[in-house]
Amino acid sequence: MDKRIAIVGGGVGGLHLGLYLLQHGIPVTIHTDRRPEELATGRLLNTVAHHAVTLAREAQLGVDHWPTEDFGYYCHYHHFGGEQPLFFRGDFAAPSRAVDYRVYLPRLMADFAERGGRLQYGELKADDVARLAQEADLVVVCTGKGPLGRMFAHDPAHSPYDRPQRLLCVGLYAGVAEEATRSVTLSVSPGHGELIDIPTLTAGGMAHALLMENVPGGDLEQLPRLRYEDGPRRFLDTLLAKLEQHHPTVARRIDPSAFDLANGPGDLLQGGVTPTVRRTHVPLGDGKFALALGDVHAVVDPLCGQGANLASYAAFVLGEEIVRQSVYDERFCEQVDARRCDRVLGAVRWTNLFLAPPAPELQQVIGTMSQDRAMCDEFTDNFNRPEAQWDRLASPQRMRAWLAEREAARA
Amino acid sequence: MDKRIAIVGGGVGGLHLGLYLLQHGIPVTIHTDRRPEELATGRLLNTVAHHAVTLAREAQLGVDHWPTEDFGYYCHYHHFGGEQPLFFRGDFAAPSRAVDYRVYLPRLMADFAERGGRLQYGELKADDVARLAQEADLVVVCTGKGPLGRMFAHDPAHSPYDRPQRLLCVGLYAGVAEEATRSVTLSVSPGHGELIDIPTLTAGGMAHALLMENVPGGDLEQLPRLRYEDGPRRFLDTLLAKLEQHHPTVARRIDPSAFDLANGPGDLLQGGVTPTVRRTHVPLGDGKFALALGDVHAVVDPLCGQGANLASYAAFVLGEEIVRQSVYDERFCEQVDARRCDRVLGAVRWTNLFLAPPAPELQQVIGTMSQDRAMCDEFTDNFNRPEAQWDRLASPQRMRAWLAEREAARA
Repeated sequence: MDKRIAIVGGGVGGLHLGLYLLQHGIPVTIHTDRRPEELATGRLLNTVAHHAVTLAREAQLGVDHWPTEDFGYYCHYHHFGGEQPLFFRGDFAAPSRAVDYRVYLPRLMADFAERGGRLQYGELKADDVARLAQEADLVVVCTGKGPLGRMFAHDPAHSPYDRPQRLLCVGLYAGVAEEATRSVTLSVSPGHGELIDIPTLTAGGMAHALLMENVPGGDLEQLPRLRYEDGPRRFLDTLLAKLEQHHPTVARRIDPSAFDLANGPGDLLQGGVTPTVRRTHVPLGDGKFALALGDVHAVVDPLCGQGANLASYAAFVLGEEIVRQSVYDERFCEQVDARRCDRVLGAVRWTNLFLAPPAPELQQVIGTMSQDRAMCDEFTDNFNRPEAQWDRLASPQRMRAWLAEREAARA
Repeated sequence: MDKRIAIVGGGVGGLHLGLYLLQHGIPVTIHTDRRPEELATGRLLNTVAHHAVTLAREAQLGVDHWPTEDFGYYCHYHHFGGEQPLFFRGDFAAPSRAVDYRVYLPRLMADFAERGGRLQYGELKADDVARLAQEADLVVVCTGKGPLGRMFAHDPAHSPYDRPQRLLCVGLYAGVAEEATRSVTLSVSPGHGELIDIPTLTAGGMAHALLMENVPGGDLEQLPRLRYEDGPRRFLDTLLAKLEQHHPTVARRIDPSAFDLANGPGDLLQGGVTPTVRRTHVPLGDGKFALALGDVHAVVDPLCGQGANLASYAAFVLGEEIVRQSVYDERFCEQVDARRCDRVLGAVRWTNLFLAPPAPELQQVIGTMSQDRAMCDEFTDNFNRPEAQWDRLASPQRMRAWLAEREAARA
């Protein structure tokens, strides 16, 4: 009996799942309202790094078009401002890599179509849901937009916030030099926010995503409302001044005369997300279910760079279970969720922890990491395994135990 | 740093955990209000078979005192009454075994004490909880009695019932012959209840536990209120008449002249349990937690013989995690629960499904099993793996898929 899978949403989760299923001989349709050419020429979608675990999945899918030898980065530099600034480094065991999704998604859509995947364009209406459910054995929902996305209720147990915790101002910039080793810089200006500087492949070549995570009420909170179109020079000068004040280790790598959005005004994205976990599945009648994947399941603030990696991870878990099983009932949804939830919730909790002012134990972890390279390497490589990160950070006792373990290792 | 573990409750869960921890060099105290000599001379505690997975854990603990070569049983005989009675057999891959807990628990308590485990006798009072929490890093609660047991609230999502679904009348009897192969018989009298006949080692040698699961409102509902002490002959004659009418394949093996409680009036237990799942852990303050194990976590009706096996399984999961980890915070409780919940909930749901009138698909599964030995063997051996049983039975679609798979296998 053919397995009939409908995917609603053409982001990284939907595409990785679609490609996985095609690779395993399962026909699949992706429903999306965005054609590849619209994506390619539209506004910046996000800024997102794929860590080694995600790159390994791309290799498995045969969509590793952007080798890390050319485009990857190898470590995190951390800057913590304040009276006694800290600047230190942690290495990945294997490199990460960031590609502008206006390049990435259209290329994977082409791969998907070339391999026989069906892309169905158009916005779904409320009365399309019943038809979808009838035609498919399982409906996977990867976009919060539209009537299906709205069916997934909040899970209050894992959704502590009712509004964005950071006001985001993110752009792809030219004029930013690299550190000696190509790297992401995570810069913290206590009380004001964070800057994540990500070397990113764009349609116009390598550029730097400067993801500014600004604390509401802090000194940078106006940035998300500062309009580039109203005066590029004023925008850039304001940004440069704020970067010098709050994120000096990134600012010192900027050549002001070359500093600008890399490929024009579309390279800027301003806004904010409310971290939210939703119910994992909803019944569609007749024993069929819609299952949430990626952002529909869990929206994380981009601070820790987990969203896309989670969506890809969960897509593979789901793909493996679709291949292994043949009945897509509530038990199936529960089993998928049991396999993915530790990583997904690990990322949710770790990110939410880092959005809050740091507890004394976390401050001590950061201070110790600045002197203990092996500890910082572990923290850095755990961007691949958010559940392992959470194993270290989940409680004051755990952080104290980690510190004691490191002290013993150094002795 | 020493790990300090307090176990409250001296049943199979607490003892298996305690023995596991001692085996791994972790000192442990079991708090119980029942001394071994009180258990040994008291009323029947339950009737419970240990399946092969539990026997393997006993071997690992070095408490396999009752070899299956002498005391084990090898298969299930099923009888379904009605207009067209069914009688069929399913085999275990490896034998199960039942020992009267008045023999079993005192022997394991002696093992525990001999190996350096501390048994602390007495009833815990409300103000003992704070002291326990202070002296231990983790408090494991294996008895619903007392102030700790009451801290674990119902989990309504997995507790569909608010009263017992069967009125139980269970005794250890002499005068019951074996089938050709030593076996448990599962006999169903539709609308009236079930009889589970379990060959059981007692203090006086082998006897048969006749566990009568009587449907409220059915023809056998008065059995749990029929008093043996008021007139043994009347009790036995009533029971014999009901067995002949409702459970003929067991009745035909009974010699009425020898039929009686095996070792006296204490061999009878009458009552009922409300199937209940409870919250898995509660905070005790100072970052410490009490974790529910066994019956405190999930009470199942004895119909499918899962309670003791679940408690032993969960004790090993918990023991492994106590050994592996060193911080017993909420994350720890969550990880223990994530590992054990599929099996525990599998048993809960499967048992609850069998307490309800069977849906058409389940009737078809039973009918097909009566003709398909391999299918019935799978069902039988899955008494070792309730989550796998639930994978087969969780929805009408799954049961239909199983039937189709068997049809294809037979073709």
